Order: sequence, then C-alpha cells, then structure tokens
Amino acid sequence: MNIDLSKIQSPADIKGMSIEELELLSEELRAALVKKLAAHGGHVGPNLGVVEATVALHYVFDAPTDEIVFDVSHQSYVHKMLTGRIGAFIDPARYDEVTGFTSPHESPYDLFEIGHTSTSLSLATGLAKARDLKGGKQNVVAFIGDASLGGGMALEALDYTPELHSNLIIIVNDNQMSIAENHGELYNHLAELRRTDGHATNNIFKALGYEYVYVAEGNDLRHLIKAFRAVKDTPRAVVVHINTMKGHGLPVAEAHKETFHFAGPFNPATGAPVHAGGEGYGDIFARRMLEIMNRDGNVVALTAGTPSAFGFDQARREAAGRQFVDVGIAEQDCVTMAAGLAKGGVRPVMGVVSTFLQRAYDQLSHDVAINNLPAVFVDFYTGIYGMNDITHLGLFDVAMVSNIPNIMMISATNAEEYLAMIDWAVKQTEHPVVVRTPGGAVRHSERPVDTRFDRYEVVEQGSGVAIIAEGAMLENALQAAAILKTRGAAPTVINPRILSRVDKECLDSLEGYSHVITIDDGIIDGGFGQKVAAYLAAKGTRVTCLGLATEFMDRYSVADVLKANNLTPEQIAALA
Amino acid sequence: MNIDLSKIQSPADIKGMSIEELELLSEELRAALVKKLAAHGGHVGPNLGVVEATVALHYVFDAPTDEIVFDVSHQSYVHKMLTGRIGAFIDPARYDEVTGFTSPHESPYDLFEIGHTSTSLSLATGLAKARDLKGGKQNVVAFIGDASLGGGMALEALDYTPELHSNLIIIVNDNQMSIAENHGELYNHLAELRRTDGHATNNIFKALGYEYVYVAEGNDLRHLIKAFRAVKDTPRAVVVHINTMKGHGLPVAEAHKETFHFAGPFNPATGAPVHAGGEGYGDIFARRMLEIMNRDGNVVALTAGTPSAFGFDQARREAAGRQFVDVGIAEQDCVTMAAGLAKGGVRPVMGVVSTFLQRAYDQLSHDVAINNLPAVFVDFYTGIYGMNDITHLGLFDVAMVSNIPNIMMISATNAEEYLAMIDWAVKQTEHPVVVRTPGGAVRHSERPVDTRFDRYEVVEQGSGVAIIAEGAMLENALQAAAILKTRGAAPTVINPRILSRVDKECLDSLEGYSHVITIDDGIIDGGFGQKVAAYLAAKGTRVTCLGLATEFMDRYSVADVLKANNLTPEQIAALA
Repeated sequence: MNIDLSKIQSPADIKGMSIEELELLSEELRAALVKKLAAHGGHVGPNLGVVEATVALHYVFDAPTDEIVFDVSHQSYVHKMLTGRIGAFIDPARYDEVTGFTSPHESPYDLFEIGHTSTSLSLATGLAKARDLKGGKQNVVAFIGDASLGGGMALEALDYTPELHSNLIIIVNDNQMSIAENHGELYNHLAELRRTDGHATNNIFKALGYEYVYVAEGNDLRHLIKAFRAVKDTPRAVVVHINTMKGHGLPVAEAHKETFHFAGPFNPATGAPVHAGGEGYGDIFARRMLEIMNRDGNVVALTAGTPSAFGFDQARREAAGRQFVDVGIAEQDCVTMAAGLAKGGVRPVMGVVSTFLQRAYDQLSHDVAINNLPAVFVDFYTGIYGMNDITHLGLFDVAMVSNIPNIMMISATNAEEYLAMIDWAVKQTEHPVVVRTPGGAVRHSERPVDTRFDRYEVVEQGSGVAIIAEGAMLENALQAAAILKTRGAAPTVINPRILSRVDKECLDSLEGYSHVITIDDGIIDGGFGQKVAAYLAAKGTRVTCLGLATEFMDRYSVADVLKANNLTPEQIAALA
Repeated sequence: MNIDLSKIQSPADIKGMSIEELELLSEELRAALVKKLAAHGGHVGPNLGVVEATVALHYVFDAPTDEIVFDVSHQSYVHKMLTGRIGAFIDPARYDEVTGFTSPHESPYDLFEIGHTSTSLSLATGLAKARDLKGGKQNVVAFIGDASLGGGMALEALDYTPELHSNLIIIVNDNQMSIAENHGELYNHLAELRRTDGHATNNIFKALGYEYVYVAEGNDLRHLIKAFRAVKDTPRAVVVHINTMKGHGLPVAEAHKETFHFAGPFNPATGAPVHAGGEGYGDIFARRMLEIMNRDGNVVALTAGTPSAFGFDQARREAAGRQFVDVGIAEQDCVTMAAGLAKGGVRPVMGVVSTFLQRAYDQLSHDVAINNLPAVFVDFYTGIYGMNDITHLGLFDVAMVSNIPNIMMISATNAEEYLAMIDWAVKQTEHPVVVRTPGGAVRHSERPVDTRFDRYEVVEQGSGVAIIAEGAMLENALQAAAILKTRGAAPTVINPRILSRVDKECLDSLEGYSHVITIDDGIIDGGFGQKVAAYLAAKGTRVTCLGLATEFMDRYSVADVLKANNLTPEQIAALA
C-alpha cells in the first residue's frame, strides 16, 4: 500500500483515510519533506517534528472554516502539503512556488503572513472575538511552540484569552527546544508537566483558567486525533500540550537540533552542508566579542534566543560562560535587561537580527535612550542584502532606531570599520550605540578607520557632485564614481557612518555643489538621506534621495530591487 | 507623640524607629500626601496604597546600596518622601520640585527614569546580573503592581529571572486594580491566591520556580517588615505578594479607585474636582464611537488598559457592551488582536495614548501592516501639547508610525475634521489607518472637510511662500500667515492631513515658490516635513523644516518649547 501524494489537493482528501493510511501518509510526507529540505534547505527540525500533529489537525478540524493560525509559521510546511500545495514539495522544479511561511496570497488556508514569534494567540483571540460577534460556530486554533510561548506578547494573550469565555484551542507544540536550547522557567515548567504526564501540582495553564489536556505521544496520530477530537467545538479556552520531537524521523536532525532548526541544502545521511559557508559578519563579531570578554570580565554578550544568528554557536557560548546571556525569544526583556546591566556598571552588547529588534522599540526608547545608558546593540541582516522574506526584511531599522533621541546609530561598510565600531562602542560610556552590521558578503578595506564616528568620512574628495552612501551602498557609490570619472567628472564620495544625525560641518563643506545624492541601504523614508535633504534644502542645494520605496517586498531578487530603485552604479552615475 | 517629617532626610532617619513610631510616621506621610495631592493633583490611589509598604521597604532594606526599582514609578511618592525630598511634599511652595516618577537626576535613590509599565523586572534582572559579575552582595528589589504584571515584558522577565539563580526580590503589589478594573486571568489567579491566603493549588509563581511569600495585610507594617526581613539577602528569586488597598486611608479614593488613580486637584472630603474639565477629544471620540457601534454591531472599540484616556468611562464601557474590549495593559496583544478582528471581518478601533503605542511597533508592522488589514488606531496625547513628562512625550509617534509601509497615518487639526477622519477610517477597508488626535484644546472649524485624506488641503491659497503645517501647528501657520499678510505677503497655507506619504500633485503645484516651510507637531526627524524636503530638494526648491529637535524633554513649558524651536507665529513669519 502506498499513498499518491500528488492526489492530496485539500484536507478533504485525507478525511476518509484509516489510521493506517494516515500513518502511511505521514511517512510519505516526511520522506518528501526530507528530500526537499536536503536539496533546498529550510526549517528542518520544526517541520519534521509536526508531521503527525499537522495531519491530525487537518483530519479532525475543518479548515478553512475552522481557522488555524500557525505561530511563527515556519512549521507550516506540512500544512501547505495538505492544502493544495503538494506540488511545491514533491516536484523539484516547483520547490520555489511556496514561501517558507503562511501567506494569504498563496492559499485561503493561510490566514496571515507570519514570521515573527508569539503572535498566534493574539491573532486567534481576534478571530474568535470576531466569530462571536458575528454568531459563527467555527473552531479557532492557535498552534504555538518551538519557543514562541515565552515571548511577551504570547504571554499577554495567554493571560487574556480565557476572558473571552469562548472556543479557542491552543496547541502548545512542546519540542523541548527553542532555536537554540530553551531559556526561561516556563520551559522547566513544561518539562515538569512532561515528567508528571501532565499532572504536576502547579500547572500554569490551569492557574490561568484553561482547561488542560496533555498528549505524551505527540508524534503518534492516534493520541493526537483523540485529543483534538475531545476539544473540538469546546465552548472555552483550552490548552492541548503535545510532546513532540524536533527533527523527528531524520537522525541527523534529531541529534543536532540547533543546527537543523534551519539549514541550507545538506546531505541527509551525514548532515554535512552542501555549500561551504564563507566568512560571515556573525563570525567576525563573535570572535571579537570573545576577545573583548576575555580581557574584560565586565562585558556581557546578550541575545534573545538567536545566538547563532551572530556567530555564537554552542562552543562560543560555553567559552563566554557567565558573560553570555540568552533570555530566550524575549527581545523586550533582553533590551531592558541591557539597560539594567549598563546601569549596574557592566557593558552589555546585544546581538540582534534587525527585524526582531522591532519587538523592542519602546524598550530602546523608554528604558535605554531616556536613561541614556551605554548599552550596545549590534544589528544583523540589515539592508537590501538582508533576509528577503516579507516578514524578515532588514529595511526598516534605520527609520525605527535613528530617530530615537540619545541613541547613536552607526553603520559600517567593511569588516575593519565594523570591528573598530564595536571596539569603540564597548569602550565609550556616553550613549546607547546601535552598530549596523553591513549586509552582503564580507568586504575588507585598507582604508584607515577614523574612529570619530559622529563625523562623516570623505572617502573620495572631488567637486561639483557628492554621493553620500551608507553601509553596503557605499560600494555602489564608489563604482558610480568610477564610471563618472571615466566621463570626466570627479564626484566626492562620502561614507556617513553616523545615521542618527547629520554632520553639519561636512555638509556645509559641500557649499557650491550642484547636486548631492544620498543612498540609504533601506527605505528612504525616515532614513539618513532625508535628514541630509532637509539640512541642505534649507540652503537651496539640490538633493536626490535614493534608497528603497516604503513597501513590503517578498522574496525579492537583489538585482531587481537595485534596478527598480535606481541603485545600480550605472543608474547612480546617470542621475548624478 | 508625633514625628517631624521635615527631619526625615534619608532612610537612616527611620531605621531606629519603633513600630509605633513607624506607624505614626506612616499616618503623617499619608496625611501630607493627601494634602499635597488634593492641592496639586497626581497619582492618588497608587501612592496612598503603598505608604506602609514603602516605609517597610526602606526600614528593612538599605538603599541606595540595596537597589530598588519601582515599576511605572508613579507609586514612588512615599519613596521620595523618605529619600531626601520631603520638602517637596510638605511645603506647598516646593511641590513642583519633584517629578511624578523616579528620576536619577533627582536622587541617587532613583535608579531609572520610568513611566511605562512592566519594565522593573527586566531592569532588576540586569542590575542583579551586573552585581553578580562584579561580586556584589546587595539586594535587588523590583516593586511591581497596579496592573504592571500583566504586561508582556514583565511576563518575559518573570519567566527568565529565576534562571539567574541569585538574589532578586519581586514585590507584587496587588491592589486588585489596574488603572480601570483589572483584565486578564493573572488577576483572577491573584484573587485566588488572596482567597486562599496564598495556598491555592496552582501557583503561577511556584510553577515558574519562585519562592513565594504571601502577605495578606499589605497595609500593616508589622506583617510587611516580617516578610521583607525574611527574604532579605535571599540567594534566589523570590516573590512577595502583598495585598494592599488602592487609595488606602482616603475614603473617596477607596470608593472611586479608577477616578482617583490619577486626579487633578480635588476636595479631599467630597472628591469633587477643583477645576471643571472642558470638552476634550477623548469625549468627542467616545461619543462618536458609541454612535457608530450602535449602528453597526461589527465595530469594536479596544484599549490596552487605558479606556478613560479617550473618554470610555465606566458608563460608556457598559453602553458599548461586548463591542468594547479591554485586554489590560498589554499593547502588543491589543494591536495584534485588532489584526485578528479585522481578518475576521470586524472593524476594530483601538484608542491608544501615543507614548504607549511604542510598545507595539512590531505588532503594527508585522501583524497589521504586512497583512494590510483595515484596523484603525486612534492616537491620543500627541505633539507639543501632549503629556510633558519625559517618559510620556507624544513627539515621536509620527517618526515611528508613518514610515511603516501600508499604514496610512492621518492627522486632524480640529474636531470636525477629526470626526470625519474617524468615520472615514472605520468605513474604508483598504489599509490600516492611524488617526492622530490633535493636541491642545478642542478647536472647531466651519471649513468644509474634504474626505480625500490622502491629499493635502490648501487652506489658504497664496503664492511665493508656502507653509505646510500638521495637527495643532496649523493654527500657528495660519497666525503666521496673518502676520505676513499685514506685511504685504500672501503665503499659501497647507494642512497635509496625510503624514505617511507626500501629496506629489500638491507639492508639484508649488513650482516657482521661493520657499516652503514645513511644521511637524513633534520631532522633525522622520516626520512628514523631511519627506516634503526630500521631494522638493530634488527640484532645488528651498525648504525649511520646523518642528522639535530630536531630544527628550521633561516637564517642559509649551511656550518655551515653541519659542526655542522657532514655532511662534512671529518666528514662523520672520523665517518665511
């Protein structure tokens, strides 16, 4: 017996299956997933862990009438396989037809674009309240786990949800892991619940008024189906805690859970990556931080659950010892803990993925900036060369951070400048500093680094036209200048470094220039270029602001985006 | 026997007191507080409830060596009275010498500027970790309550703190209230703990690994001192749950807890306010929302714990019934619940104080804007006329919100335009909309309202010079224009309304103008004026951006700020 996966076009196609057929289906889905993931890369462990849970979910509930929200949604691959998108998982030519997250543009079974953690309960609460106001009867299901539960907004919603006194089913997918190891007592508590088969004396879900169901065998279809059937159509808020195994069914992923949380193409037998990784800014950062922390016991590196995003693999975390803090996926807590550390006389350096720093705007402003504490934040995956999923864009950090008073935001253009910025930021005690890690491949430079980072750096002195370009865009400016030189012009090229205020002295020196071009490596609105434009426009200087339009893009090609926004060297030269 | 309060210059002055003397001291502190609050206004209930707890805290712990962090810090008045600032509470001429929040500029006993909720645990965690790295032995105490505990970042920290395996004392001040009534199951759980004298079966604090101590008599010095002594120098994370009474000792404040959370000057016997309140935008908003919700059962008003900030007093909340949602002080949950409601086909309208919207930047961006859901957010206490405490400024919302793609941010200049914007925002289904409520006194206008809010409105057509001014600043622009007219000039005055993009057509119509002035009602950086400048600078038009500098100010005078930033009508006219 086997199942023809290509015939699975909607959940209706599995409703009539026997348990044995569903088990076979799960096996085949897993095998197809492993094949695609090994060839294509993606979120390996999270999806392999929830094959059975997703099959059971669609077997018991009636999506899209019943509304299922996947938290983070990087574990929605099996859901996609069962809801009309199987071709993108079994036909290598079609692998790129689906995104790695739920997307309403792709399917009515996907309710939201979701890529950040901990949002599902609030979204589900809204859906449930809307259903109740409209007199609907459908189930609303939030599928949360893989460390999302410890995020503040999930906890806020966990606190509020029972107050609806209405159907809302929360499936806590407890795979005993975060991206890296779990942090936070909630996870010890989940462990206690597992240890006691759901009967621990203190049960946080019961304390908050939830009905609670525990499923010890979270990779067993029979147990899952039984539990889901029992809670379907419940008139209240219920938590179904399922114990699953991250990476289930792929030995290398079971054994190396952090490595296989997300992976590029790999050999499924050995786990070896297909592409050798080049030098990355994460490694450069982590190596330097370890040196600094070795010398100075009062420097602490922090992360909110994503240490490997900036080079702190397990060995480096161990080397840093008590000078490394991972609070779990809890950016707010991490940023404000950094404020407390700085106040306590320790130098905190938080590594953070640009898009996730968004979770801590108020903490940056209210806790760090108002108190003007010398905490350091190093911002990764920024700009046009950053991540390109719609939920993970690195295009908005400058607009968000650089307009908060007291914060000095500086942006590097190459490895040497970057290291000098980190060294300087850790030493200074005047301000909070955000260091923007350049996007793209690591670039080296022999240009001497002037560490007065509150000043613009004139990289090439010319006349008439000036191009001021930050981060990865400096290279495009330099190439544009080279083109212009072949045409007899001699533009001045400036690396602004500081994005949070203008260098008036430098800008004043451009008096008499006929044209100034600014290039933001991100959206133009709210960026450094508009500050320059406002300053120079008061003098009547002509300024053109380049950068990206204020819009969300999904899985874009860098080349296309550069071209669409007049950012290729040729286009810049033509505009000058 | 009585205590000479003026002699209390530091906690050392109370260390030698007997319990009877401490009780007398508490009585006198409370009497002085009532006298000042009745004459001056301030946070009444929160401070009256913690007189004994604060006395006990300073009696048992040794600040400033022991580090005490007050959450929200609006309940730190008694702390200030005991730490060198008694004069500002007993001498009416000196009432304004202290701010309403902790402030390191005022005293070494105050560790942070704090005005938003739920930050104390993260700050304390940072202080504790810094202490441990440096080998210190002091106690770190977080004093949290009055609804702060349900905020996501407090919950994140509550989850992480025990992992430090070190001294950190969390005093949960359970006064059974938020600003309005409490929301969230956590508060039912606290009620269960109170009901069972701390012995409930499911204890959330114990579930998270805390040692837990319950003090039923939280306004009784003997019980408080005993409990604090028992946990002083503990080597671990401990929660001391104290049951206090908000407004304790002032009958009107005990009886009307929401009204006396914060109050202007009042008659202490009757509770009657000294100053009659004029018409406010909150009332205007709430009245209109009730009309809309009456007509349409699919419109929902939401708040994150601050309903009275925009006119939803208890009677109006009851009138709105199930169409009113208060999730408690949990802005993240509220904004993302709005996304879920919009997806579910209901029209959510969240009223929110500008400074508190900062808590939900990522939710606005990732949940609402990426999904382009028609949720409406009405932003209060904005601009120069907004709140003037350093932690509550309304100067940053435009920079924060208007640069997020898909969100349409519109700003009103008078009541009629404001109501038209709300009506329009609730009806449209194209975008998320943020409506900026004007600052200052309510202004009425007979100008007809053009509801094409994505276009700038030419209020006065002139030539040569144009002034584009948003929100409350339009009035200054009109007055400047009147001055200019007396001098023979005829400036064009424009009300931009939309702040999230420029109206190119309108700006193109300014071709040939010699000077364009923009005025943001908030900081210039990241605001609408810099967008205008960038657009016009590309054509070489001279543009001057007015508004505020990017800095934090504390308890400023509007007149001084206008003058310092060239924003008086005379100054604007002089610049034109």
